[in-house]
Amino acid sequence: MRRRRTTTARSDPARAIAFSDAVIAIVITLLVLDLRPPETEAGGLLSALLNEWPTYLAYAASYLYLAVIWLNHKAAFTRIREMDRGLQWANLGILATLALIPWPTAVIAETARRGNLADQRVAVGLYALAGALLCLSWLIFFSYLARHPDLTKEEVDDSYFVRERPRALIGVGLYVAAGAAGVLIHPLVASVIFLLLPIFYGLTSHGFDQRPALFGGDGHDENVATDKSSNG
Amino acid sequence: MRRRRTTTARSDPARAIAFSDAVIAIVITLLVLDLRPPETEAGGLLSALLNEWPTYLAYAASYLYLAVIWLNHKAAFTRIREMDRGLQWANLGILATLALIPWPTAVIAETARRGNLADQRVAVGLYALAGALLCLSWLIFFSYLARHPDLTKEEVDDSYFVRERPRALIGVGLYVAAGAAGVLIHPLVASVIFLLLPIFYGLTSHGFDQRPALFGGDGHDENVATDKSSNG
Amino acid sequence: MRRRRTTTARSDPARAIAFSDAVIAIVITLLVLDLRPPETEAGGLLSALLNEWPTYLAYAASYLYLAVIWLNHKAAFTRIREMDRGLQWANLGILATLALIPWPTAVIAETARRGNLADQRVAVGLYALAGALLCLSWLIFFSYLARHPDLTKEEVDDSYFVRERPRALIGVGLYVAAGAAGVLIHPLVASVIFLLLPIFYGLTSHGFDQRPALFGGDGHDENVATDKSSNG
Amino acid sequence: MRRRRTTTARSDPARAIAFSDAVIAIVITLLVLDLRPPETEAGGLLSALLNEWPTYLAYAASYLYLAVIWLNHKAAFTRIREMDRGLQWANLGILATLALIPWPTAVIAETARRGNLADQRVAVGLYALAGALLCLSWLIFFSYLARHPDLTKEEVDDSYFVRERPRALIGVGLYVAAGAAGVLIHPLVASVIFLLLPIFYGLTSHGFDQRPALFGGDGHDENVATDKSSNG
Repeated sequence: MRRRRTTTARSDPARAIAFSDAVIAIVITLLVLDLRPPETEAGGLLSALLNEWPTYLAYAASYLYLAVIWLNHKAAFTRIREMDRGLQWANLGILATLALIPWPTAVIAETARRGNLADQRVAVGLYALAGALLCLSWLIFFSYLARHPDLTKEEVDDSYFVRERPRALIGVGLYVAAGAAGVLIHPLVASVIFLLLPIFYGLTSHGFDQRPALFGGDGHDENVATDKSSNG
Repeated sequence: MRRRRTTTARSDPARAIAFSDAVIAIVITLLVLDLRPPETEAGGLLSALLNEWPTYLAYAASYLYLAVIWLNHKAAFTRIREMDRGLQWANLGILATLALIPWPTAVIAETARRGNLADQRVAVGLYALAGALLCLSWLIFFSYLARHPDLTKEEVDDSYFVRERPRALIGVGLYVAAGAAGVLIHPLVASVIFLLLPIFYGLTSHGFDQRPALFGGDGHDENVATDKSSNG
Repeated sequence: MRRRRTTTARSDPARAIAFSDAVIAIVITLLVLDLRPPETEAGGLLSALLNEWPTYLAYAASYLYLAVIWLNHKAAFTRIREMDRGLQWANLGILATLALIPWPTAVIAETARRGNLADQRVAVGLYALAGALLCLSWLIFFSYLARHPDLTKEEVDDSYFVRERPRALIGVGLYVAAGAAGVLIHPLVASVIFLLLPIFYGLTSHGFDQRPALFGGDGHDENVATDKSSNG
Repeated sequence: MRRRRTTTARSDPARAIAFSDAVIAIVITLLVLDLRPPETEAGGLLSALLNEWPTYLAYAASYLYLAVIWLNHKAAFTRIREMDRGLQWANLGILATLALIPWPTAVIAETARRGNLADQRVAVGLYALAGALLCLSWLIFFSYLARHPDLTKEEVDDSYFVRERPRALIGVGLYVAAGAAGVLIHPLVASVIFLLLPIFYGLTSHGFDQRPALFGGDGHDENVATDKSSNG
């Protein structure tokens, strides 16, 4: 593998990237398994399909969420030069928690369909818990990278992952708050926040990357500046 | 990654390609999950299997459709040099809509098996909606590339993705028309069009590529001419 | 992509390989989805698990079959330099038919569990049909390569894929014969042949590759001799 | 493929690695398919979710186990230079046995939920059998590599895979012992050992790698020292 540039003992992130891509691709398509032909009497298909709207909304929200996670994962790994055992486990922690997302998504869709308010409070609480765990796994991941700047590419500003931490921490807080609002006020409040959060993260991630170049040539998007001579 | 050739800030499409391949591979095999041992009384397996013919036809049609999509995805990405955030989302939009295909496929197979005409109209309408959405996501993707020629490889004619747009637009129209014909005339009309459309797209895509070389060495198939010296 | 060595217009097989790997990996693990906790009364788990033996055997046989297919797919693609549209479709045909294998596998396991002889005849007939279709798709694939020697690597003997064709043709015949024997004589006869066929193909594929080097340096296994200078 | 450095006839491990990654990614996410919205009466969701705790524990344990396997697989393959047919089958054997893990995991979760002690003994016995088979497949894999040092990278100490064998052998013994303890004493004893074993393997794998450099530059983690000049 020509990407390895060191004689030190850490590993190239290539295989971790391929493995993560496969897991995220599977999880994002697992969501669709909930879209099934509804069981219905002859002639009742249209109304049965229309009644499934919570499932469609849940599919859209979770797809959006996982798409943002994949983009952030990609943005983080373009800055990682090599991985040690700790970073591998931090990444496996992210994969473990994001693989949970289809489950509370299905629970919310199920309870929205049946309409019991107590169950709906429980369902949004479960989703909030999963969302908070996922943000927590990102917080651990970013913190590890912030403490190990030697794992990042040379061109990456040492403070990059330090600055990513607050966003993950705020995510934990927002999911906990959304869950509390869903349980104490109304599940719909939580559901709206669940829909807005990935959009917020998608936009701010973009914004963070597009600030005037604070570090090297890494001003616009998610790619790090690489020395032309090393590629030519 | 040695494929990155620029110091500008966009990202290499390699990971988006790997992720798309995984999603399309999963979706194309999800179709097979509908092929199950039929529940039947002892001795009734043969007739039960033969009664499942709509499922087999739906499997064949959707496999064909997704295979054509994968080939077109590959043809498009061999022309893309780097991706920005907007192109990533356009690609994620394609993946989101193509992941829907197994669902209306299963609904059509289910209603064909049970034979209620009203439900069959609804089912082909749903499939038409999904097909139109998918063509729409391609239209957005091609339009984005047509407006951002800097994302394509140098050897690619700037008008390539401009010329791809009408085909996607026609697809939206044809799926809407097929759905309308299925609802207003007979579901079978729509089903036949659904089967013919991927064949048409497979053939015209081939045709487009095989026209006399309008740009550089890109005359025959889906590969762009690359400078020999950069590969030697 | 540095592997492209030509300015001609065909595409690099890299993405077709990645896509095929993903599809085969999914299909080979779909088999395991049939292994579920059996529904049973309290205390009846052990006997319920033991009664599932046809499923275990079917899992083993189909895993073995798909593993041999993957190895053959790998052996074929190490000899392919570039792909045109026809070869892409030949490969997609292989993927379409191999994705069918878990279905007749599950049907055989289901009928073996319930023990109705008429259904078992149908089940082995279905498996024979799928196996014959798969061999047929390989025959088309090998024939295409035999007629297009320009798609293979320079070091590969032009007769390599010519010589692969009879093996695929024999496979079609053997699956048809096994199915006929299963329907006319006894399903068990067919099942035993189904188990032996992948073993035979695994061994002969090995044997073919290990014959004294008839062509270039490609004597032993599945790798083609490559010019040292181009790798050093 | 530029990684091939020999004119001898074995194959590059790249495709076996990609295939293994895909299989392990699928198996690790198959576990999540067991997390479904529980079927419950209106208002009973919370207690139903809490009653599912054995499923959550089983998910965590098996995820941990498969993550350790993936890390070990990665560590082994960074030391492999090329593969022959025998090593391909040894790797396919590992994939076949690890794909089994979700099944006994689901059986344990199912019996824990229903609480019949006899069934729980059977379930832990099944899990122990699967675990022992998996360790056995690793033993075969390591033994093959120990007998074929020519397949490993030049920088790798010939005794590396010799020293890996006892750990796999101990694993076989520990799983058999845990199963026996679960059947003869109490299923809970086995379950605790099942949870501890991956942790033990995760830690000792780490420990083995971090010993003072006994061979070349391969002292710390899972990457082999590579000649700087071949990468520069």
